[in-house]
Parts: sequence; C-alpha cells; structure tokens
Amino acid sequence: MTRCPCEEEVLERVRPTPEERTYIRAMGERLIEAVERSGMAKAMMVGSVARDTFVRGDRDLDIFMLFDPALSREELQVQGLALAHRIAEEFGATWREKYAEHPYVNATIDSLDIDLVPCYAVASATEIKSAVDRTPFHTRYILAHIDDYADDVLLAKQFAKAGGVYGSDHMTEGFSGYLCEILTIYYGGFHPLLRAAACWRAGEVIDIEGHAAKEFEDPLVVIDPVDPERNVAAALSLSRMFEFAELARGYLAEPSAAFFCRSPPPPLTGEVFSRLLAARGTHLFSITFATPDYTPDTVVPQLRKSAESIRELLERSGFPASRIDVCMGAERCILLFELMAGTVPLMRRHIGPPLSARENAEKFLAKYVSAEVFAGPYVEDGRYVVEVPRPFTRAVDLLRSKTLFEVALGKHVYRSMKQGWTVKVGAECWDEEFASFLSFFIERSSPLARIKRTTGG
Amino acid sequence: MTRCPCEEEVLERVRPTPEERTYIRAMGERLIEAVERSGMAKAMMVGSVARDTFVRGDRDLDIFMLFDPALSREELQVQGLALAHRIAEEFGATWREKYAEHPYVNATIDSLDIDLVPCYAVASATEIKSAVDRTPFHTRYILAHIDDYADDVLLAKQFAKAGGVYGSDHMTEGFSGYLCEILTIYYGGFHPLLRAAACWRAGEVIDIEGHAAKEFEDPLVVIDPVDPERNVAAALSLSRMFEFAELARGYLAEPSAAFFCRSPPPPLTGEVFSRLLAARGTHLFSITFATPDYTPDTVVPQLRKSAESIRELLERSGFPASRIDVCMGAERCILLFELMAGTVPLMRRHIGPPLSARENAEKFLAKYVSAEVFAGPYVEDGRYVVEVPRPFTRAVDLLRSKTLFEVALGKHVYRSMKQGWTVKVGAECWDEEFASFLSFFIERSSPLARIKRTTGG
Repeated sequence: MTRCPCEEEVLERVRPTPEERTYIRAMGERLIEAVERSGMAKAMMVGSVARDTFVRGDRDLDIFMLFDPALSREELQVQGLALAHRIAEEFGATWREKYAEHPYVNATIDSLDIDLVPCYAVASATEIKSAVDRTPFHTRYILAHIDDYADDVLLAKQFAKAGGVYGSDHMTEGFSGYLCEILTIYYGGFHPLLRAAACWRAGEVIDIEGHAAKEFEDPLVVIDPVDPERNVAAALSLSRMFEFAELARGYLAEPSAAFFCRSPPPPLTGEVFSRLLAARGTHLFSITFATPDYTPDTVVPQLRKSAESIRELLERSGFPASRIDVCMGAERCILLFELMAGTVPLMRRHIGPPLSARENAEKFLAKYVSAEVFAGPYVEDGRYVVEVPRPFTRAVDLLRSKTLFEVALGKHVYRSMKQGWTVKVGAECWDEEFASFLSFFIERSSPLARIKRTTGG
Repeated sequence: MTRCPCEEEVLERVRPTPEERTYIRAMGERLIEAVERSGMAKAMMVGSVARDTFVRGDRDLDIFMLFDPALSREELQVQGLALAHRIAEEFGATWREKYAEHPYVNATIDSLDIDLVPCYAVASATEIKSAVDRTPFHTRYILAHIDDYADDVLLAKQFAKAGGVYGSDHMTEGFSGYLCEILTIYYGGFHPLLRAAACWRAGEVIDIEGHAAKEFEDPLVVIDPVDPERNVAAALSLSRMFEFAELARGYLAEPSAAFFCRSPPPPLTGEVFSRLLAARGTHLFSITFATPDYTPDTVVPQLRKSAESIRELLERSGFPASRIDVCMGAERCILLFELMAGTVPLMRRHIGPPLSARENAEKFLAKYVSAEVFAGPYVEDGRYVVEVPRPFTRAVDLLRSKTLFEVALGKHVYRSMKQGWTVKVGAECWDEEFASFLSFFIERSSPLARIKRTTGG
C-alpha cells in the first residue's frame, strides 16, 4: 500500500503514541478488572480505544459492564449504577450520572473521560434489549476484521472530521466512527473507499456479510454485519453522503494535507455579517427561545421539524424562504429563515372548488358573493378563484403571532415557545451566542468548495 | 312548454317583428335571385336570418354564393369577387372587400349589413375545401331540425350574450350561434339545456348524430352533425363553459330578467382604479405597443401567447404574477401583469446538477468556485446549489429590457414590439383607451357573481 506523503504526515500526527496507547489501555484493563472483581458483571472496552482506531489526544474510554440478561430493566439500572458509582469512587474519580437510553456514569480519572455503561450480555446482536447492548458486538466484529486497516480507518475518520461530515448526531447527520470502520474494511482501505465514494449514487447498498433482512429507503444503506435488520448509515443525510463523495473526488484529483485539517473559518463580526446580508438583499428573520432541557438528539430533530412547519406556514402566507436552518445553543435555540420578501400585497388569491363539484361551488359562491373581497369569485381553469385580504402582510407580524402554535412544532419546542420567543429582523439577527452558526449560514459552501478557495486550488 | 314570465318578456323584446323578418328575408330573396340570374353560381341565405334565430335589431344578412367545385381557388376568388362587386353595385350599396379565409364583400344596403361570400358548392360537409363551404350545411341542418325551438334558441343566445359568454372569437372563447342552436336542439329546449349545463363536467361529449370519428381533448365536445371530425365547441374555453354552467344554476334557482340583460358596469375612473389598486397592494405593469394590422383572430392568440411567455420569464426571474390579461385596441395592444412583488433580492439560488452526475457536478463546482457568488456551491438534497446575483432586481427593468425578445412572442407582436413598446407601473397603467378592460380586470367577477351583486340576490 503506497501512501501519499500527506497521509504519512497525517498519520504521524493522529496516530496515538505508544505511550498514550499503553497508558489508556492499562487504565481500561484496571477498570475491567475492578468490574469483574465485583462478581456482578463481565466488562469490556468498547469504542475506538478497544479497536485501536482512536485518534491522538482522544481522552474517551468506554467500559461496558455486561450484566446477566435475566435481570429486569430496573435491576439492571439499580445494580449497574451502584457498581459504576463504586468503581468511580474506588478510582477517586469526579463523576456524574448521565442518560442516554439508560443511565450510566461519566467519570474523569487522570484526565481521561470515561463512560461506565451497564448493558445486557446477550448472546447475539439480534437479541439486544436496548441499543447499548449492540456496542460490544460492534467492537468484537471490528477487532476480528480490522487486519491491517487501523491506519486506514484513522485516515478515513480524520478525513471525515476535517470535512465536517463526521458524527452521526442529529445536527451533523454524518458518518459515525463505526460506519467509517465498516466502509474502510468493506472497500479494503482508505483509497479504495475514496474511489468508491467518488462514484456513489443515492440508494447505494453495502452488505458486508450478505445477510440483509430488511429494505431501507436511506441514501446510503450499510447493513450492520452484526444485525441484518439495521442500517449502520441510517443517520447519514443525502447532503453529508455527497459531501463525502465530493471530498473524495477532490482528494483523488489533488491529494493534499488540507483535506485532513479542520480549519473552520473564524466567525464573522456583526458588521461583516450585516454587510453580507445587505448585499444579498434578502429578508432574514430569527426566532429564539430557551433551550429545552433535553439532549441534542431529542431537541435538534424538533428544531428541524418546527422550522420546516414554520417555513410551510410562511410559504402558504406568501413568504417563500430561500433557506432555513436551526441551531441548539446551551441557553437558547435559534430558528433562522431567509425570505425572498418581508412584505406581501394585502390581496391574495384564494383558489376554490372546481365548478364541476356543484354543491361545493355553490356554497363557495354564496359565501364570497356577500363577503368583502377585492375581486371574484371568478372562473379560472374550471375552478372558482376569489381575491381576499390576507391576515398578515409582514412576515415579522406572522412570526410574532400565535399562529405559530397552529403548526406542528416539536413538543419541547412548543413548550419552550409557550414561555415566550423573540423575533428579530435583518442585521438584528446577529447574535454573539450564534456567531459561528450565523457565519456558516451566510457563507455556506460545500467542504470541497471551501478547501479549494482556501488553497486556491 | 311553460315559460317563466321573464322569458316571455325577453322574447317580446328580442323576437324580430313580423315586418322586420319579412323585410330582411325579402332582401335576401332579391339578392339570391340576382346571384342566380348571373348564371355563375347558386345562392342561399345562411346564418341566423335564414334559420329564423336572429335577434331583433340584428342587421346582419349573409348570402353565400355557391360556385362549381371544379373551379380553382384563384378562379373562385376572381369570379366570386367579380360577381359580388356587380351585385353590390346593382343594389346601389356602399361596399368593401374583406378577408377571412377568402376575400368576400361586405355591403351596406338599406341599413342592412350584408356579407356576400363566395364558396364551393360541395356535395357534403366532409368534402369542403375551406371552412366557409361548411356554413350552408349548418344552415340546412338547423332548418331541418329546429322544429318549434326557434324561441328557445333565441332565449339561449340572449342568455349567453347577456352572460358575456356568446361568441367563438378568440377574445371571448365562448359559444357560437351555431353551438347554441345545436345544444338547444340536442337537449330539447332552453330549460332542458340549462338543466343539463348545470351538471356539466369538463370533457362532456355530445354527439347528436352519433357519428363521431375523432377524439377531442376540448372541455366541451359537440360533434358537428354535418362533419363527424369536427368539434363545434372547439373554441370554447373551460372558463366560458363553466360560466355558462354557473349562470344556468343561478337562473334555475332564481329565474329573473337580469340573466337576459347585458349590463356591463360602467368603466371606472382613473381615480377609482388607482384607489382599488392601492388597496390590493399588488404591483401592476402594462406593456403597450402598436396594434399589428391583422384581424383579432390572428392577433389575440398572439397577445395571449406573448403574455404567457413574459409571465414565465417574470416567474423565472423571481416575479410571480397573480394574474395577467391582454387586450387588442384599435391603435394599441396592452399586456397587463399583476405581480406579487415589484422588486426582489439581488441573491438568487441557482440549482445545479445532482452530485451523482459526477462529470456535470465537477464542472459546476469548478465554474462557481472561482466565480463571484454570495454562497455555495453547497450540497442540498443531493444537488449542488449556488447563490448568485440576478440580472434584474426590479420587474420594470426586466420588462424594459431586450430580454423580452428572448421569449416566444407571437410573430406580429414581436414585429410590432421591435418598433418600440411602453412599460407603465402601478396607477400609471390607467389608460382611457383601455378603461373598460382595466376596469374589468380589477373588478373581475364571474357573470353570476355580478348578477347576484347587482340584484342583491
């Protein structure tokens, strides 16, 4: 396998040092030993440390504690947390409870970020009781198949990270670490993966074990080698998939270190933002409200859904959006709408029933013939049309009105907005809390376009 | 047959007096005799006078001169016009040549408006050489089938006229006299026609002789009883068809004389027009240019086509229209566009190829990565999108630019506009020459809505 010089450099940079690896694995072994000494559960390291695919400087160590599947969920929680607490104390850690599908303990020991996660020791990945039970199988599968691809996986991960497409969280909608590993193994290395990705089409199916037992509609389908009914790439959006394809094409054409360096442009200043916005001539509106007290994976999809519903409301009301986006901040969330018009004529056309639907047509005519209208009802393409005043001629009035609660907002967004929300217009939307988000919005470009502009390529 | 009192009143008003009928028919007989005396052609009265379905005060008399089909087209024209000239002179008429498909003579004799039309005496309507040859067959058919329906036809025609749906010209796109006659005969009278029309659906097919030999896509299909391959209602638009249906429903529910009185509202003043326009809040634009020297049936479809093309151009350019309309005046033509916005942001989104079309995608990226753009190229729904400046941010600039010549204008419209055109904006669009048209545009209502509002019904 020949590597570009830039890849060797990247590996030198991201490959953990032998000392680092020894240190972190030793910590893992000590924790495993401590868990198993309790007699309550088996234990294993999972995640990238276990698979030797972690990147230098990563301080994350995941220890799974595998309990007897005969335990009830409640017993698992009680016993699992008790054991995790005891271990954390034993190691003199600062720790706290966290919640994913189940509660677990997040501890800081010797500056390592350690998760102690209780799960069931099921016999196969198809018998899992919750998503965490699957993780040990993933680790075992990768360990068994990674061969000499550890460096390739590191390159693939770093490539995806630098391109901004790494992470299967709802905000990113990109490639998980496990997905990078499976793809690298499947295609047989980093370069073969890039060559394949350069030619990806929507609906690509990869079934490394040839055991798919379900159909998926996702843009990329990677059947989990340990679970024939699961798509490893379910969280990947079409956009992130093709950004990866785009990066692959760009890198194959002209490999360079720039593809491995995440250098997000520094956020704009409010002044520059305001100037860029004025040049566009569009009408920007932001809605902000207090961030609901839930994880991003709960809140972000609700922000997306709410923004989409409001976009449709705006569109129905005569204000088509050119782009929308959302961001979940620590204190506040923001929904951003860039509209092609901030005001619309008072007159709107209301399309009625076809004349051939006699009863409805007669009702429509009777209603509007005695209403205050600008024109109509008249007949157009076989339907009644009437021209009536609209309730809102300014988008800002609509966004400040209770009409927002008539559309499908996410549950927690709805509750938070019920406590109040703020609408800002134009350059006023600038907000230091969201400086990066707003800068990215107004300068939006694909990862490759950004690299090409930065490197003058 | 029982008639509503209002129908009797209408008939009293529109039925020609015996004196009028005798007088006009006597003139017809004298002209026929004069034609046949020449030995050059047979002659017959056609049109509503011949069929006894003319309306009081109509001063139109059509005399067709039927020549030997063995004549060439040129011979027919030469001989036909020569004979028509001679007859016109013999009757001391003021006359002039006119052109439809062929030249004919229009003469004024004793204040009657008389057309002397040369045509071929073909053996059947399916052997015609031009559209005028068909007319004698229509007259013979109606005469043979009208029975006692002459009054019903008068009512149907007057009903259609008053409703603004009478006339198969391109501006009206309504019901021809012949179509009214066929429909009245087919359904068996005025009331049965209304009851049927009230239930019409788009695509209604009527084949009185059960001999259809062709499929039609028109909203209403009435197979010509003298020609199985012709739709008598080909010129009827969906809108006029359903305006008739609407009037029929309204009349059957509440018969009144208002349905037989054409009382177009008086045109607005410029001031009122301006006030109504301001209330709508829309952005009105007119284009005017010299009327091409052709008949309305040539020019009007070209105006429609041109306006539709310009509407699409406006829409593509960010200016969606709420309504458009056209009018052909004696001196000038007007195209009217009511837009929802007069200005748009400089930024427009340009949707590029899907990333999966690799070659096109790479070209697109290469082109825009080094162009002056607001944002992008970025990936959205699997396609590239780039945000670029648009050439026109004001609709008026677009309408005043030569870009108009890049869209499909009618040939004669194109030629006339090449000589110059005027664009006006908002209340400036008011123009005394088009006062009725502009008033109708801004107060547009269906015929029934108008009647209901006028009568308070």
